Amino acid sequence: MEFKINFSGTGHRYTKEEIDTVVEAMQNADPLTQGKYRDAFEKKFCEYNENEYSFSLCNATAALELAAQMCLFKDGDEIVTPSHTFTSSVYPFVKKGAKVVWADIDFDTRVVTLETIKKCITSKTKAIVVVHLYGFIIPDIQKIADFAKESNILLIEDVAQAMGTSIEGKKAGTFGDFGIFSFHSHKNITTLGEGGMLTVKEKKYADIIPMLRHNGHCGFDYEREHYWQPAMGELDLPNLNGENLLPNNYCLGEVECALGGKLLDRIDEMNAQKRERAVKFIDALKEFDDLVFHKVADDRHNYHLLVAYVKNGKRDEIMKKLVYEKKIKCVVQYYPLNRYPLYQKLGFGEANCPNADEFFDNMISFPFQHWMSDEDFLYMLEATQEVMIELK
Amino acid sequence: MEFKINFSGTGHRYTKEEIDTVVEAMQNADPLTQGKYRDAFEKKFCEYNENEYSFSLCNATAALELAAQMCLFKDGDEIVTPSHTFTSSVYPFVKKGAKVVWADIDFDTRVVTLETIKKCITSKTKAIVVVHLYGFIIPDIQKIADFAKESNILLIEDVAQAMGTSIEGKKAGTFGDFGIFSFHSHKNITTLGEGGMLTVKEKKYADIIPMLRHNGHCGFDYEREHYWQPAMGELDLPNLNGENLLPNNYCLGEVECALGGKLLDRIDEMNAQKRERAVKFIDALKEFDDLVFHKVADDRHNYHLLVAYVKNGKRDEIMKKLVYEKKIKCVVQYYPLNRYPLYQKLGFGEANCPNADEFFDNMISFPFQHWMSDEDFLYMLEATQEVMIELK
Repeated sequence: MEFKINFSGTGHRYTKEEIDTVVEAMQNADPLTQGKYRDAFEKKFCEYNENEYSFSLCNATAALELAAQMCLFKDGDEIVTPSHTFTSSVYPFVKKGAKVVWADIDFDTRVVTLETIKKCITSKTKAIVVVHLYGFIIPDIQKIADFAKESNILLIEDVAQAMGTSIEGKKAGTFGDFGIFSFHSHKNITTLGEGGMLTVKEKKYADIIPMLRHNGHCGFDYEREHYWQPAMGELDLPNLNGENLLPNNYCLGEVECALGGKLLDRIDEMNAQKRERAVKFIDALKEFDDLVFHKVADDRHNYHLLVAYVKNGKRDEIMKKLVYEKKIKCVVQYYPLNRYPLYQKLGFGEANCPNADEFFDNMISFPFQHWMSDEDFLYMLEATQEVMIELK
Repeated sequence: MEFKINFSGTGHRYTKEEIDTVVEAMQNADPLTQGKYRDAFEKKFCEYNENEYSFSLCNATAALELAAQMCLFKDGDEIVTPSHTFTSSVYPFVKKGAKVVWADIDFDTRVVTLETIKKCITSKTKAIVVVHLYGFIIPDIQKIADFAKESNILLIEDVAQAMGTSIEGKKAGTFGDFGIFSFHSHKNITTLGEGGMLTVKEKKYADIIPMLRHNGHCGFDYEREHYWQPAMGELDLPNLNGENLLPNNYCLGEVECALGGKLLDRIDEMNAQKRERAVKFIDALKEFDDLVFHKVADDRHNYHLLVAYVKNGKRDEIMKKLVYEKKIKCVVQYYPLNRYPLYQKLGFGEANCPNADEFFDNMISFPFQHWMSDEDFLYMLEATQEVMIELK
């Protein structure tokens, strides 16, 4: 089916300067991975997002895999996490041995609250994975962080969709023990389609991540007389809290790092532009009570996605008109994870998340790539108005 | 220390056409990952290397992780693998539960033989991991494949360094159950510093690799009336021989795939140029008996690396002169893996590999990036001749 407005897989377009940055790195990086562009990107990221330590990775799932590995789960340990999120937020923790307890979302903000989290806490809770979904920073994030700290529970903040957002001046990804960032194709900034960042607060994690990320490579613990004796480098098992961990290879290339650093100059501008459009869209549709948006006209929301809850069971009626008549490829997100065969087969098919279920079953996600033309945006807005008038 | 000739981390330079390919994909790929450029790259790779199925991945270690996962190791299962190789050839198998039995290399060819492999086989051997090291295809590879097949042992061919080599017209990576290819920065072709490919022969592996590679994403097993009902896509656990496996995220971006496809046009030419230079170097030094190269003037060797064994304990004497006087950054490779703390702590510190030990302790690896200028190459050749004459 041909759409007039597609749901693009590419969040933004590259400028001439960003393309030049890629070409420059292709010509000058030596090596093309794990060199000075990585170091510069990580440093600039720490400055931008006010993190203590940042580590570039091949994707955000890798960041979650590393966070999960550093949780050191023991038999029976649980994580609390929303069912309404993308699968990568959860399955890496299952791989490392955690049991999943699904937390519900707040209906209006579509993210977890301290209250929905607390309902899931048991004596076995080892970690909480919260997701700033759709680009909205969780209002309770400071309270959740305080609660986690006093409960001796690790907090993983999945900021994949919410980069650049903040609450009272404090950036998403600075509250938890681990911050997860994504530069995937769909995201507000993307490092050639794949890329991620893991931020941590504590030095004990920062000390071992380079080894966990890159095959266990490390330096010798003594001064060598010649650089080739006894070998060019050392390999060891990273150790955390007395436990040896096995390494991985999750490196991000230099070209992507050069581009990522460059994109940090433009993320705030792109976020602001998306937010301005989102607010315009929401305001223009406010007379239609069946369509419930989440309007946030400040830095707490970057409108990575533009989604609406549809009242009175009218979702599919509206979808059909938008899709088949107006040729706008709206989609639905995020199928509650407990409903997928993947989680059911793992024994995590049960959830008590009525808000997540109700929201998913009645939501629409509009195409909202940053590069959508004003003309297309206006078409989408007017087409949606027409559909809502027809169905009134 | 400033070198006149560095051991570059970048195997080759990009042409104008290759840079244009990257820019084109940056501007046109939608999405920027897991789209048509991936499909085209994998198809072209299958044609180039004569493989049944090819899957692009974020790096070659990911290819080894997937191969290891599909071995379905049970308690006590063993792999046989050379100690003289890069660590990524081995640790993914340890992560999946295999015990390591170290096979020695043949002294002259620096790779394993059917005989050195056979010495390590027990009733618990589940897989053999062979490495076409330095860019030389293992002479016994067909015999090893036949032996593995009749013994019901899986064969993993690590072709990271030997892409494009062949023996009697049959390409490296077409003998084993799994073929591993690397497009890392050092390699003869590199997809912006990181990248890999996994090839398989059997459909049962090919059927599940897309899910293993990409978070368990799959299609619904029934026709949906509307694309958004019940959800945009399905998530399930890949199943192999009745066992459910957990997924990963090992995707390679579209830009890298576009570039990888383009580089396939030039790999044979670059391999031939490296081989020609290597043979020239070896021939020019043949009067010096202390320096023992492995000369192969045909498609069996791509001279990813140019290495020599040094007789009579003179290695360090020669290294010191090359490094400190001639300012050529020679290196040493590959420290027998059993000597690293990483493998020792895992219980694999013992090896009976006298050839590997003797070779490593007395070898030199010369800088040999494809982009080395003729002037620098000549300087390196003459400088080495001078050093050898001085030490005669």
